[in-house]
Amino acid sequence: MDAEGSWSPNPRATGWRRRLGEFVLSSPVQSFVLAVIVLNAVTLGLETSPAVMSVAGPFLHLLDTIALTIFVIEILLKLLALDGRFFRDGWNIFDFLVVVISLIPAAGPFAVLRSLRVLRVLRLVNRLPQLRRIASSIIKAIPGIGAIAALMAIVFYVGAVMATVLFGNSFPQWFGSIPASLYSLFQVMTLESWSMGIVRPVMEVYPEAWMFFVPFILVSAFVMLNLFIAVIIDAMSNLEGSTKGTVAEPAPVRTAPVPTAGSIFAAERELTELRAEVTETRREIVAIRALLEGRATGSN
Amino acid sequence: MDAEGSWSPNPRATGWRRRLGEFVLSSPVQSFVLAVIVLNAVTLGLETSPAVMSVAGPFLHLLDTIALTIFVIEILLKLLALDGRFFRDGWNIFDFLVVVISLIPAAGPFAVLRSLRVLRVLRLVNRLPQLRRIASSIIKAIPGIGAIAALMAIVFYVGAVMATVLFGNSFPQWFGSIPASLYSLFQVMTLESWSMGIVRPVMEVYPEAWMFFVPFILVSAFVMLNLFIAVIIDAMSNLEGSTKGTVAEPAPVRTAPVPTAGSIFAAERELTELRAEVTETRREIVAIRALLEGRATGSN
Amino acid sequence: MDAEGSWSPNPRATGWRRRLGEFVLSSPVQSFVLAVIVLNAVTLGLETSPAVMSVAGPFLHLLDTIALTIFVIEILLKLLALDGRFFRDGWNIFDFLVVVISLIPAAGPFAVLRSLRVLRVLRLVNRLPQLRRIASSIIKAIPGIGAIAALMAIVFYVGAVMATVLFGNSFPQWFGSIPASLYSLFQVMTLESWSMGIVRPVMEVYPEAWMFFVPFILVSAFVMLNLFIAVIIDAMSNLEGSTKGTVAEPAPVRTAPVPTAGSIFAAERELTELRAEVTETRREIVAIRALLEGRATGSN
Amino acid sequence: MDAEGSWSPNPRATGWRRRLGEFVLSSPVQSFVLAVIVLNAVTLGLETSPAVMSVAGPFLHLLDTIALTIFVIEILLKLLALDGRFFRDGWNIFDFLVVVISLIPAAGPFAVLRSLRVLRVLRLVNRLPQLRRIASSIIKAIPGIGAIAALMAIVFYVGAVMATVLFGNSFPQWFGSIPASLYSLFQVMTLESWSMGIVRPVMEVYPEAWMFFVPFILVSAFVMLNLFIAVIIDAMSNLEGSTKGTVAEPAPVRTAPVPTAGSIFAAERELTELRAEVTETRREIVAIRALLEGRATGSN
Repeated sequence: MDAEGSWSPNPRATGWRRRLGEFVLSSPVQSFVLAVIVLNAVTLGLETSPAVMSVAGPFLHLLDTIALTIFVIEILLKLLALDGRFFRDGWNIFDFLVVVISLIPAAGPFAVLRSLRVLRVLRLVNRLPQLRRIASSIIKAIPGIGAIAALMAIVFYVGAVMATVLFGNSFPQWFGSIPASLYSLFQVMTLESWSMGIVRPVMEVYPEAWMFFVPFILVSAFVMLNLFIAVIIDAMSNLEGSTKGTVAEPAPVRTAPVPTAGSIFAAERELTELRAEVTETRREIVAIRALLEGRATGSN
Repeated sequence: MDAEGSWSPNPRATGWRRRLGEFVLSSPVQSFVLAVIVLNAVTLGLETSPAVMSVAGPFLHLLDTIALTIFVIEILLKLLALDGRFFRDGWNIFDFLVVVISLIPAAGPFAVLRSLRVLRVLRLVNRLPQLRRIASSIIKAIPGIGAIAALMAIVFYVGAVMATVLFGNSFPQWFGSIPASLYSLFQVMTLESWSMGIVRPVMEVYPEAWMFFVPFILVSAFVMLNLFIAVIIDAMSNLEGSTKGTVAEPAPVRTAPVPTAGSIFAAERELTELRAEVTETRREIVAIRALLEGRATGSN
Repeated sequence: MDAEGSWSPNPRATGWRRRLGEFVLSSPVQSFVLAVIVLNAVTLGLETSPAVMSVAGPFLHLLDTIALTIFVIEILLKLLALDGRFFRDGWNIFDFLVVVISLIPAAGPFAVLRSLRVLRVLRLVNRLPQLRRIASSIIKAIPGIGAIAALMAIVFYVGAVMATVLFGNSFPQWFGSIPASLYSLFQVMTLESWSMGIVRPVMEVYPEAWMFFVPFILVSAFVMLNLFIAVIIDAMSNLEGSTKGTVAEPAPVRTAPVPTAGSIFAAERELTELRAEVTETRREIVAIRALLEGRATGSN
Repeated sequence: MDAEGSWSPNPRATGWRRRLGEFVLSSPVQSFVLAVIVLNAVTLGLETSPAVMSVAGPFLHLLDTIALTIFVIEILLKLLALDGRFFRDGWNIFDFLVVVISLIPAAGPFAVLRSLRVLRVLRLVNRLPQLRRIASSIIKAIPGIGAIAALMAIVFYVGAVMATVLFGNSFPQWFGSIPASLYSLFQVMTLESWSMGIVRPVMEVYPEAWMFFVPFILVSAFVMLNLFIAVIIDAMSNLEGSTKGTVAEPAPVRTAPVPTAGSIFAAERELTELRAEVTETRREIVAIRALLEGRATGSN
């Protein structure tokens, strides 16, 4: 996701390759592609309206094909110019996948593939620096919550097996299988209709069902709270790192980061050493005074 | 939204204009307008009650007309006194719009315009310093979330196009068009009846629908969490700036701001320079001792 | 809510009054009252069960009367011992009101008064130091949110008047009057059934109703978020104050408070003055060296 | 929950006991047990599927029995090797209980016991260091919220008694007894269908019911917010402690902790003492200068 790595042309590239890279990544070409993405977003939206399609269907399809052609050409040129370095950047891989999906013929019942074409619009995020920065920072927050997510997954799996064993026979639509239970527990965790919709009906058959669901809600809420805190603390810590490491970068979104223990500890160490220095200095001075007074006495 | 800019009369204004400005912005006149706003808020509330209207309808309408006349006069006087500077203040523009809306005749089915008249009550916020400060700080937080809001808008647009393509045919009431899908996805994001009300019915036709909705919920919740954090960190950073920049202002609402890295870094720099000074001092002293001891030896 | 103010006997009290105060506030008496409160909480709970009441109703009523008598005696003794100082403490006023409510005869349909008797159990909070500290800190957080609460109240009032004007005729059960609208908007703010229960039905009559409700949800959520942040920052700031002021108190619940700008700023001032002192010291030393070298030169 | 305490073999153990401990806790044995836990998690999941059971039921039961046998042997060996120290570790007690539960014959209607067998999967958390650290930190956060949880329990008890007295007769399904009221109030606190599902129906009989529920929602939300803040501040404080105490440990998940007042206060004390030292030093130097100047004058 490094901006410099993906956008600058290959420095070791020779002749035409270097010129091609400079051309594809030049400001006017990129602005043109950005405009095509926005236009394509509009046409993809209009294509969902039967009224618009009956009037301008072929025209919209033509625009869509033109946009797709432009995207394919851009990707091909970039592939040529950047060579193997193309796939080192996450955003490039995303661009590539999104365009490849669009090339698969979406005939017949493949509404799913047709719906995935709109993911192209997400390429906007990559092209607008502010959005890219936000998206990168959000994506960077994901590994920080990995361990909590794994813990949550175990809690959910255990909960789903228990719910399937306990309530599966009487409520197959909610807890008939592990996937069904996982979905229902996710719903319960979001607190959506958990009581009136799920637990009260279940309690009519199993009056003790609240002993499973109420603790599940409390545990999942508490784990989510900790996930939440992990992301907050991560965000605060990242701020410090980002301001220190990116002096040459354009001005960051946020300017006044929260202090981290790093700087505090540094200050503490500095203070301790400073005091040692002062103590040493004082000892010297006391020695001088003794010397002077001794001489004064001696000379008298 | 600068208090000084909007409330002090034009310093370059001559004669009558200056006196007019001083009169309109004087404490008694402003207190009187404040009282009229509060009274008008009450009458606007009473007007919604058919029982009250059948008894005192004409009287309430009269009060309303009087209040509106007072507001129009106040705005006109301010416009005259402040001249072009009137529209430089956001609150003044808001005052102006709210009064203009009330002047449009709301006959027949224009209940909407009639309902907008109550926006006048929001002028209270501008007149009460504490509320104005809070409102300003909330409004100031909006640009800080601009980029995240734009990201959310793209996610919603992509989600709405996908939902319309995928589920529009079978569930036109929820996903029949892009606006309908945007509304339904907003409902899903707020977690309101997302499962029992929307996704479970959809899953009866498209059993894989959860593959769209569950990731959508997770992504939107995660982006909202980041928006949330951005506002928190912004608030903490703003605290520091506001306490430093507004020494002459009346006491701020919160007195003990959270420290920012700014002050910590300043302390660190100070410490480093202090230590250099002490080291230098010690070198001097060592030199003195050497001098004294040298002399002592020399004189012996 | 000051502990010392409410619990120590009046120092200027003479003879019997002082001894009475020492008796009422003595550890055994207070422990006894605490035990009576807990026992009374149990009997009040048991009284709600018809099965238990049919068996042990008169016995429970007797216990309740005994407990109430003990409370009345305790309050009376405290009133005598503390004199006018009794009502200076919020908890004492609460105790007094709760006991007075219980003395009002709750005959006939006065189930409300009977239900209020259980508020006595809340006196537990006052008697357990840890709970009292938490409750005090929560109560202290209330003034900090006063301005935001006032802003919210204005937003709700304006919203309720608008909703009543716009939707009152067609949906009298939800928006028929301002109190009804206030309640419905509170429900909408908590996101409970806002869409499936309220807005979708309303939109069948007024298709543009989302233009009122979606902004209302966003605004109220944003104001609540700011209220939330205000409480968090307040809590962090309060921590500092509480650890400084209560050195002699028993160990606080939380030991490592987050630093506030107060201490940071103090450290900065200290540093600046320290550096001035060191600079002055160095100037002295330079003068000494000049003196010594001058003499050395002079004596040569 | 101390890692060293539970995993290292008993140092005072003699001969075979020490060798046994080293064997059970050796890396290959523990990896094998971990693999058995994962495999067992899969078989426990498959056992919930009637289709799979009809094909491979006996085989799955056999696998389950084998896994359980391995767990029993592991626990027995650990018990022998660690002796009384086995039960000093929370995770060991959890392991022991989970295996004992599985040994109870779950014949007939004991689906509950059968469902509890899946708790074995939670032993994964103990075996994976990252998950264990997260789980420990979450468990450590619980005592910090003890006082708030107690306060919440009192609020809930008082609320439940009041609701039972007020609404129990007309709505026995929701408020017929104290446990029913506690459950319903928990639902109201989670905001699930509180209005459309509970309070609006109740208000048709008791129009003033909102005077109980709206304050209850506000109070419980406010207490929960404070609980939330307590956990956040605790997490921030713990970070500091954990980074200081565990230098020799593997790298912690989070590297840049937020500073706590502890280190700030230490820095402040250090600064004050430093300044005293410098002041003392300066006094010495002034004395030296006076001495020198005095002699200079005297010798002239």
